[in-house]
Amino acid sequence: VSRDAGDRLERQLAFVVELDELKRVLRRSYIRRGERLENSAEHSWHVALMAIVLAEHADRPLDLARLVAMLLVHDVVEIDAGDVFVYDGPGRAGKLEAERRAADRLFGLLPADQAREIRALWEEFEAQETAEARFARALDRLMPLIHNYRAEGRTWRENGVAAAQVFAVNEPQISQGSATLWQRARRLIEDAIAKGWLPA
Amino acid sequence: VSRDAGDRLERQLAFVVELDELKRVLRRSYIRRGERLENSAEHSWHVALMAIVLAEHADRPLDLARLVAMLLVHDVVEIDAGDVFVYDGPGRAGKLEAERRAADRLFGLLPADQAREIRALWEEFEAQETAEARFARALDRLMPLIHNYRAEGRTWRENGVAAAQVFAVNEPQISQGSATLWQRARRLIEDAIAKGWLPA
Repeated sequence: VSRDAGDRLERQLAFVVELDELKRVLRRSYIRRGERLENSAEHSWHVALMAIVLAEHADRPLDLARLVAMLLVHDVVEIDAGDVFVYDGPGRAGKLEAERRAADRLFGLLPADQAREIRALWEEFEAQETAEARFARALDRLMPLIHNYRAEGRTWRENGVAAAQVFAVNEPQISQGSATLWQRARRLIEDAIAKGWLPA
Repeated sequence: VSRDAGDRLERQLAFVVELDELKRVLRRSYIRRGERLENSAEHSWHVALMAIVLAEHADRPLDLARLVAMLLVHDVVEIDAGDVFVYDGPGRAGKLEAERRAADRLFGLLPADQAREIRALWEEFEAQETAEARFARALDRLMPLIHNYRAEGRTWRENGVAAAQVFAVNEPQISQGSATLWQRARRLIEDAIAKGWLPA
Protein backbone atom coordinates (compact mmCIF):
# COMPACT_ATOMS: atom_id res chain seq x y z
CA VAL A 1 0.00 0.00 0.00
CA SER A 2 1.47 3.36 -1.02
CA ARG A 3 1.57 6.20 1.47
CA ASP A 4 -1.30 8.04 -0.27
CA ALA A 5 -3.51 4.96 -0.42
CA GLY A 6 -2.73 4.28 3.23
CA ASP A 7 -3.63 7.83 4.21
CA ARG A 8 -6.90 7.51 2.28
CA LEU A 9 -7.85 4.38 4.24
CA GLU A 10 -6.91 6.05 7.54
CA ARG A 11 -9.21 8.98 6.76
CA GLN A 12 -12.03 6.61 5.88
CA LEU A 13 -11.52 4.69 9.12
CA ALA A 14 -11.45 7.92 11.14
CA PHE A 15 -14.90 8.72 9.73
CA VAL A 16 -16.17 5.20 10.45
CA VAL A 17 -14.92 5.45 14.05
CA GLU A 18 -16.54 8.87 14.49
CA LEU A 19 -19.90 7.45 13.36
CA ASP A 20 -19.96 5.50 16.64
CA GLU A 21 -20.99 8.78 18.30
CA LEU A 22 -24.42 8.78 16.65
CA LYS A 23 -25.35 5.93 19.01
CA ARG A 24 -25.44 8.34 21.95
CA VAL A 25 -27.79 10.87 20.27
CA LEU A 26 -31.25 10.30 21.71
CA ARG A 27 -34.49 11.09 19.91
CA ARG A 28 -37.91 11.74 21.46
CA SER A 29 -39.36 8.46 20.17
CA TYR A 30 -39.61 5.37 22.34
CA ILE A 31 -38.77 1.93 21.03
CA ARG A 32 -40.72 -1.22 21.90
CA ARG A 33 -43.94 0.43 23.16
CA GLY A 34 -42.08 2.76 25.51
CA GLU A 35 -39.13 0.73 26.80
CA ARG A 36 -36.48 3.40 26.23
CA LEU A 37 -35.73 6.35 23.96
CA GLU A 38 -34.44 5.54 20.51
CA ASN A 39 -31.01 6.65 19.36
CA SER A 40 -30.34 8.13 15.93
CA ALA A 41 -28.09 5.28 14.76
CA GLU A 42 -30.66 2.52 15.27
CA HIS A 43 -33.33 4.85 13.87
CA SER A 44 -31.24 5.28 10.72
CA TRP A 45 -31.03 1.52 10.27
CA HIS A 46 -34.75 1.10 10.81
CA VAL A 47 -35.77 3.75 8.31
CA ALA A 48 -33.24 2.55 5.69
CA LEU A 49 -34.61 -0.98 5.79
CA MET A 50 -38.16 0.43 5.86
CA ALA A 51 -37.29 2.21 2.59
CA ILE A 52 -36.38 -1.07 0.90
CA VAL A 53 -39.70 -2.60 1.99
CA LEU A 54 -41.95 0.39 1.20
CA ALA A 55 -40.24 1.85 -1.90
CA GLU A 56 -43.09 0.70 -4.17
CA HIS A 57 -45.40 3.23 -2.47
CA ALA A 58 -43.41 6.26 -3.60
CA ASP A 59 -45.41 8.54 -5.87
CA ARG A 60 -42.51 8.96 -8.31
CA PRO A 61 -40.00 6.40 -9.60
CA LEU A 62 -36.80 6.52 -7.59
CA ASP A 63 -33.26 5.23 -7.31
CA LEU A 64 -33.45 2.83 -4.37
CA ALA A 65 -29.67 2.72 -3.79
CA ARG A 66 -29.52 6.51 -3.47
CA LEU A 67 -32.60 6.56 -1.24
CA VAL A 68 -31.05 4.02 1.13
CA ALA A 69 -27.66 5.75 1.19
CA MET A 70 -29.40 9.07 1.89
CA LEU A 71 -31.25 7.59 4.86
CA LEU A 72 -28.05 6.05 6.24
CA VAL A 73 -26.45 9.51 6.12
CA HIS A 74 -29.39 11.81 6.91
CA ASP A 75 -28.81 12.07 10.68
CA VAL A 76 -24.99 11.90 10.83
CA VAL A 77 -24.77 15.67 11.41
CA GLU A 78 -26.60 15.10 14.73
CA ILE A 79 -23.29 13.83 16.15
CA ASP A 80 -22.38 17.50 16.57
CA ALA A 81 -25.72 19.30 16.17
CA GLY A 82 -27.96 16.99 18.21
CA ASP A 83 -31.48 15.85 17.41
CA VAL A 84 -34.05 18.64 17.30
CA PHE A 85 -37.61 17.56 18.07
CA VAL A 86 -39.86 18.00 15.06
CA TYR A 87 -42.42 19.95 17.14
CA ASP A 88 -39.80 22.29 18.65
CA GLY A 89 -40.28 25.52 16.65
CA PRO A 90 -37.56 27.71 18.26
CA GLY A 91 -35.07 24.83 18.34
CA ARG A 92 -35.46 24.30 14.63
CA ALA A 93 -34.54 27.90 13.77
CA GLY A 94 -30.85 27.43 14.59
CA LYS A 95 -30.81 23.88 13.27
CA LEU A 96 -29.60 24.52 9.74
CA GLU A 97 -26.52 26.54 10.71
CA ALA A 98 -25.45 24.06 13.40
CA GLU A 99 -25.92 21.17 10.99
CA ARG A 100 -23.90 22.88 8.30
CA ARG A 101 -20.96 23.29 10.67
CA ALA A 102 -21.37 19.66 11.70
CA ALA A 103 -21.32 18.58 8.05
CA ASP A 104 -18.10 20.54 7.48
CA ARG A 105 -16.35 18.77 10.32
CA LEU A 106 -17.79 15.25 10.00
CA PHE A 107 -17.79 14.74 6.24
CA GLY A 108 -14.46 16.59 6.17
CA LEU A 109 -12.89 13.60 7.92
CA LEU A 110 -13.24 11.67 4.65
CA PRO A 111 -11.01 11.92 1.56
CA ALA A 112 -12.19 14.97 -0.42
CA ASP A 113 -14.03 13.08 -3.19
CA GLN A 114 -16.02 11.03 -0.70
CA ALA A 115 -16.66 14.04 1.52
CA ARG A 116 -18.32 15.70 -1.48
CA GLU A 117 -20.39 12.63 -2.38
CA ILE A 118 -21.67 11.93 1.13
CA ARG A 119 -22.34 15.59 1.85
CA ALA A 120 -24.27 15.85 -1.41
CA LEU A 121 -26.59 13.07 -0.18
CA TRP A 122 -27.26 14.98 3.03
CA GLU A 123 -27.81 18.26 1.16
CA GLU A 124 -30.17 16.53 -1.25
CA PHE A 125 -32.18 15.25 1.70
CA GLU A 126 -32.33 18.71 3.25
CA ALA A 127 -33.27 20.44 -0.03
CA GLN A 128 -36.34 18.21 -0.51
CA GLU A 129 -36.42 18.54 -4.27
CA THR A 130 -35.81 15.05 -5.63
CA ALA A 131 -38.12 12.03 -5.50
CA GLU A 132 -35.59 10.25 -3.26
CA ALA A 133 -35.38 13.14 -0.79
CA ARG A 134 -39.15 13.49 -0.55
CA PHE A 135 -39.78 9.82 -0.03
CA ALA A 136 -36.95 9.67 2.52
CA ARG A 137 -38.56 12.51 4.46
CA ALA A 138 -41.96 10.82 4.27
CA LEU A 139 -40.50 7.69 5.87
CA ASP A 140 -38.58 9.74 8.44
CA ARG A 141 -41.91 11.30 9.49
CA LEU A 142 -43.99 8.12 9.33
CA MET A 143 -41.66 6.11 11.55
CA PRO A 144 -42.11 8.25 14.72
CA LEU A 145 -45.89 8.13 14.20
CA ILE A 146 -45.70 4.36 14.26
CA HIS A 147 -43.50 4.32 17.38
CA ASN A 148 -45.72 6.79 19.13
CA TYR A 149 -48.91 4.95 18.26
CA ARG A 150 -47.40 1.78 19.71
CA ALA A 151 -46.40 3.68 22.88
CA GLU A 152 -50.00 4.98 23.20
CA GLY A 153 -49.03 8.55 22.44
CA ARG A 154 -46.34 8.88 25.10
CA THR A 155 -44.08 11.26 23.15
CA TRP A 156 -47.01 13.53 22.26
CA ARG A 157 -48.18 13.56 25.88
CA GLU A 158 -44.71 14.21 27.32
CA ASN A 159 -44.19 17.13 24.97
CA GLY A 160 -47.71 18.61 25.00
CA VAL A 161 -48.30 17.99 21.29
CA ALA A 162 -51.88 18.24 19.96
CA ALA A 163 -53.47 16.79 16.84
CA ALA A 164 -53.33 20.04 14.84
CA GLN A 165 -49.52 20.09 15.18
CA VAL A 166 -49.29 16.44 14.21
CA PHE A 167 -51.25 17.13 11.04
CA ALA A 168 -49.28 20.33 10.30
CA VAL A 169 -45.90 18.63 10.60
CA ASN A 170 -46.74 15.34 8.93
CA GLU A 171 -49.34 15.91 6.23
CA PRO A 172 -47.26 18.05 3.85
CA GLN A 173 -44.11 15.99 4.26
CA ILE A 174 -45.58 12.52 4.09
CA SER A 175 -48.06 13.33 1.32
CA GLN A 176 -45.31 14.88 -0.83
CA GLY A 177 -43.55 11.53 -0.85
CA SER A 178 -46.44 9.09 -0.97
CA ALA A 179 -50.22 9.57 -1.15
CA THR A 180 -50.67 5.95 -0.05
CA LEU A 181 -48.51 6.33 3.04
CA TRP A 182 -50.17 9.61 3.98
CA GLN A 183 -53.59 7.96 3.72
CA ARG A 184 -52.36 5.25 6.10
CA ALA A 185 -50.69 7.77 8.45
CA ARG A 186 -53.88 9.84 8.63
CA ARG A 187 -55.83 6.78 9.65
CA LEU A 188 -53.26 6.10 12.38
CA ILE A 189 -53.47 9.67 13.71
CA GLU A 190 -57.28 9.64 13.69
CA ASP A 191 -57.25 6.34 15.52
CA ALA A 192 -54.86 7.77 18.14
CA ILE A 193 -57.23 10.72 18.66
CA ALA A 194 -60.22 8.36 19.00
CA LYS A 195 -58.31 6.32 21.58
CA GLY A 196 -57.52 9.44 23.63
CA TRP A 197 -53.76 9.24 23.01
CA LEU A 198 -53.61 12.57 21.19
CA PRO A 199 -55.65 15.68 22.19
CA ALA A 200 -57.84 16.73 19.23
CA VAL B 1 -56.61 1.46 -2.18
CA SER B 2 -58.05 -1.96 -3.02
CA ARG B 3 -58.37 -4.56 -0.30
CA ASP B 4 -55.40 -6.55 -1.68
CA ALA B 5 -53.16 -3.48 -1.90
CA GLY B 6 -54.20 -2.53 1.63
CA ASP B 7 -53.38 -5.98 2.93
CA ARG B 8 -49.97 -5.81 1.23
CA LEU B 9 -49.18 -2.55 3.00
CA GLU B 10 -50.36 -3.95 6.34
CA ARG B 11 -48.00 -6.91 5.96
CA GLN B 12 -45.11 -4.61 5.11
CA LEU B 13 -45.86 -2.45 8.14
CA ALA B 14 -46.08 -5.50 10.41
CA PHE B 15 -42.54 -6.40 9.33
CA VAL B 16 -41.32 -2.84 9.86
CA VAL B 17 -42.83 -2.82 13.37
CA GLU B 18 -41.25 -6.18 14.19
CA LEU B 19 -37.81 -4.84 13.19
CA ASP B 20 -37.98 -2.63 16.29
CA GLU B 21 -37.09 -5.76 18.28
CA LEU B 22 -33.55 -5.89 16.90
CA LYS B 23 -32.77 -2.86 19.07
CA ARG B 24 -32.92 -5.02 22.20
CA VAL B 25 -30.47 -7.66 20.91
CA LEU B 26 -27.12 -6.98 22.55
CA ARG B 27 -23.77 -7.90 21.06
CA ARG B 28 -20.46 -8.41 22.90
CA SER B 29 -18.92 -5.25 21.47
CA TYR B 30 -18.82 -1.99 23.41
CA ILE B 31 -19.55 1.34 21.77
CA ARG B 32 -17.66 4.55 22.52
CA ARG B 33 -14.56 3.00 24.14
CA GLY B 34 -16.58 0.87 26.54
CA GLU B 35 -19.61 3.00 27.44
CA ARG B 36 -22.20 0.28 26.89
CA LEU B 37 -22.81 -2.85 24.82
CA GLU B 38 -23.83 -2.32 21.22
CA ASN B 39 -27.18 -3.54 19.90
CA SER B 40 -27.59 -5.28 16.57
CA ALA B 41 -29.75 -2.54 15.01
CA GLU B 42 -27.20 0.25 15.48
CA HIS B 43 -24.44 -2.18 14.47
CA SER B 44 -26.31 -2.86 11.22
CA TRP B 45 -26.47 0.86 10.46
CA HIS B 46 -22.80 1.31 11.24
CA VAL B 47 -21.61 -1.52 9.05
CA ALA B 48 -23.93 -0.53 6.15
CA LEU B 49 -22.57 3.00 6.07
CA MET B 50 -19.04 1.62 6.51
CA ALA B 51 -19.67 -0.43 3.35
CA ILE B 52 -20.44 2.71 1.34
CA VAL B 53 -17.22 4.33 2.54
CA LEU B 54 -14.92 1.29 2.14
CA ALA B 55 -16.41 -0.42 -0.95
CA GLU B 56 -13.39 0.55 -3.08
CA HIS B 57 -11.22 -1.82 -1.03
CA ALA B 58 -13.15 -4.94 -2.05
CA ASP B 59 -10.99 -7.39 -3.97
CA ARG B 60 -13.70 -8.00 -6.57
CA PRO B 61 -16.10 -5.55 -8.25
CA LEU B 62 -19.45 -5.53 -6.48
CA ASP B 63 -22.99 -4.23 -6.56
CA LEU B 64 -23.00 -1.61 -3.82
CA ALA B 65 -26.80 -1.46 -3.52
CA ARG B 66 -26.99 -5.21 -2.91
CA LEU B 67 -24.08 -5.08 -0.46
CA VAL B 68 -25.79 -2.36 1.59
CA ALA B 69 -29.18 -4.09 1.53
CA MET B 70 -27.50 -7.34 2.61
CA LEU B 71 -25.88 -5.62 5.58
CA LEU B 72 -29.16 -3.99 6.60
CA VAL B 73 -30.76 -7.45 6.63
CA HIS B 74 -27.90 -9.67 7.82
CA ASP B 75 -28.75 -9.64 11.54
CA VAL B 76 -32.57 -9.47 11.40
CA VAL B 77 -32.84 -13.17 12.28
CA GLU B 78 -31.26 -12.34 15.65
CA ILE B 79 -34.65 -10.96 16.72
CA ASP B 80 -35.61 -14.60 17.36
CA ALA B 81 -32.26 -16.41 17.36
CA GLY B 82 -30.16 -13.94 19.36
CA ASP B 83 -26.60 -12.87 18.73
CA VAL B 84 -24.03 -15.65 19.03
CA PHE B 85 -20.53 -14.49 19.95
CA VAL B 86 -18.07 -15.18 17.18
CA TYR B 87 -15.69 -16.95 19.61
CA ASP B 88 -18.43 -19.17 21.10
CA GLY B 89 -17.79 -22.54 19.41
CA PRO B 90 -20.64 -24.60 20.96
CA GLY B 91 -23.12 -21.73 20.64
CA ARG B 92 -22.45 -21.51 16.93
CA ALA B 93 -23.32 -25.15 16.31
CA GLY B 94 -27.07 -24.64 16.81
CA LYS B 95 -26.98 -21.20 15.22
CA LEU B 96 -27.96 -22.12 11.67
CA GLU B 97 -31.09 -24.07 12.56
CA ALA B 98 -32.35 -21.39 14.97
CA GLU B 99 -31.69 -18.69 12.39
CA ARG B 100 -33.51 -20.61 9.68
CA ARG B 101 -36.62 -20.83 11.86
CA ALA B 102 -36.26 -17.13 12.63
CA ALA B 103 -36.04 -16.35 8.92
CA ASP B 104 -39.23 -18.36 8.26
CA ARG B 105 -41.18 -16.37 10.82
CA LEU B 106 -39.71 -12.91 10.32
CA PHE B 107 -39.41 -12.69 6.54
CA GLY B 108 -42.76 -14.55 6.38
CA LEU B 109 -44.42 -11.43 7.77
CA LEU B 110 -43.84 -9.77 4.39
CA PRO B 111 -45.83 -10.27 1.18
CA ALA B 112 -44.54 -13.47 -0.47
CA ASP B 113 -42.50 -11.80 -3.24
CA GLN B 114 -40.68 -9.54 -0.78
CA ALA B 115 -40.20 -12.36 1.72
CA ARG B 116 -38.34 -14.26 -1.02
CA GLU B 117 -36.20 -11.26 -2.00
CA ILE B 118 -35.19 -10.28 1.51
CA ARG B 119 -34.58 -13.85 2.57
CA ALA B 120 -32.41 -14.37 -0.50
CA LEU B 121 -30.18 -11.51 0.67
CA TRP B 122 -29.73 -13.15 4.07
CA GLU B 123 -29.06 -16.56 2.51
CA GLU B 124 -26.54 -15.03 0.14
CA PHE B 125 -24.74 -13.52 3.13
CA GLU B 126 -24.72 -16.85 4.94
CA ALA B 127 -23.55 -18.84 1.90
CA GLN B 128 -20.45 -16.61 1.48
CA GLU B 129 -20.09 -17.26 -2.25
CA THR B 130 -20.58 -13.88 -3.92
CA ALA B 131 -18.29 -10.85 -3.85
CA GLU B 132 -20.97 -8.91 -1.96
CA ALA B 133 -21.37 -11.59 0.72
CA ARG B 134 -17.62 -11.91 1.25
CA PHE B 135 -17.02 -8.21 1.52
CA ALA B 136 -20.05 -7.87 3.83
CA ARG B 137 -18.57 -10.54 6.11
CA ALA B 138 -15.17 -8.86 6.04
CA LEU B 139 -16.73 -5.62 7.29
CA ASP B 140 -18.83 -7.47 9.84
CA ARG B 141 -15.60 -8.91 11.26
CA LEU B 142 -13.51 -5.77 10.99
CA MET B 143 -15.99 -3.59 12.88
CA PRO B 144 -15.76 -5.46 16.22
CA LEU B 145 -11.95 -5.38 15.98
CA ILE B 146 -12.14 -1.60 15.73
CA HIS B 147 -14.58 -1.34 18.67
CA ASN B 148 -12.49 -3.67 20.75
CA TYR B 149 -9.24 -1.89 19.98
CA ARG B 150 -10.85 1.40 21.06
CA ALA B 151 -12.08 -0.25 24.28
CA GLU B 152 -8.52 -1.51 24.96
CA GLY B 153 -9.46 -5.15 24.43
CA ARG B 154 -12.33 -5.27 26.92
CA THR B 155 -14.45 -7.79 24.98
CA TRP B 156 -11.45 -10.10 24.51
CA ARG B 157 -10.59 -9.84 28.19
CA GLU B 158 -14.14 -10.40 29.42
CA ASN B 159 -14.48 -13.49 27.27
CA GLY B 160 -11.00 -14.96 27.67
CA VAL B 161 -10.12 -14.64 24.00
CA ALA B 162 -6.46 -14.99 22.94
CA ALA B 163 -4.63 -13.78 19.84
CA ALA B 164 -4.65 -17.18 18.11
CA GLN B 165 -8.45 -17.20 18.18
CA VAL B 166 -8.62 -13.65 16.90
CA PHE B 167 -6.43 -14.60 13.95
CA ALA B 168 -8.35 -17.84 13.32
CA VAL B 169 -11.74 -16.13 13.23
CA ASN B 170 -10.75 -12.99 11.36
CA GLU B 171 -7.97 -13.76 8.93
CA PRO B 172 -9.87 -16.10 6.59
CA GLN B 173 -13.03 -14.02 6.60
CA ILE B 174 -11.55 -10.57 6.25
CA SER B 175 -8.88 -11.58 3.74
CA GLN B 176 -11.47 -13.32 1.55
CA GLY B 177 -13.21 -9.98 1.11
CA SER B 178 -10.30 -7.56 1.01
CA ALA B 179 -6.54 -8.03 1.14
CA THR B 180 -6.16 -4.33 2.00
CA LEU B 181 -8.54 -4.46 4.94
CA TRP B 182 -6.97 -7.65 6.26
CA GLN B 183 -3.52 -6.03 6.12
CA ARG B 184 -4.92 -3.14 8.18
CA ALA B 185 -6.76 -5.47 10.59
CA ARG B 186 -3.59 -7.51 11.17
CA ARG B 187 -1.72 -4.35 12.07
CA LEU B 188 -4.48 -3.47 14.54
CA ILE B 189 -4.37 -6.94 16.16
CA GLU B 190 -0.57 -6.89 16.42
CA ASP B 191 -0.73 -3.45 17.98
CA ALA B 192 -3.33 -4.68 20.52
CA ILE B 193 -1.00 -7.57 21.44
CA ALA B 194 1.95 -5.16 21.81
CA LYS B 195 -0.12 -2.93 24.07
CA GLY B 196 -1.06 -5.89 26.29
CA TRP B 197 -4.77 -5.75 25.41
CA LEU B 198 -4.80 -9.22 23.85
CA PRO B 199 -2.86 -12.22 25.24
CA ALA B 200 -0.49 -13.51 22.54
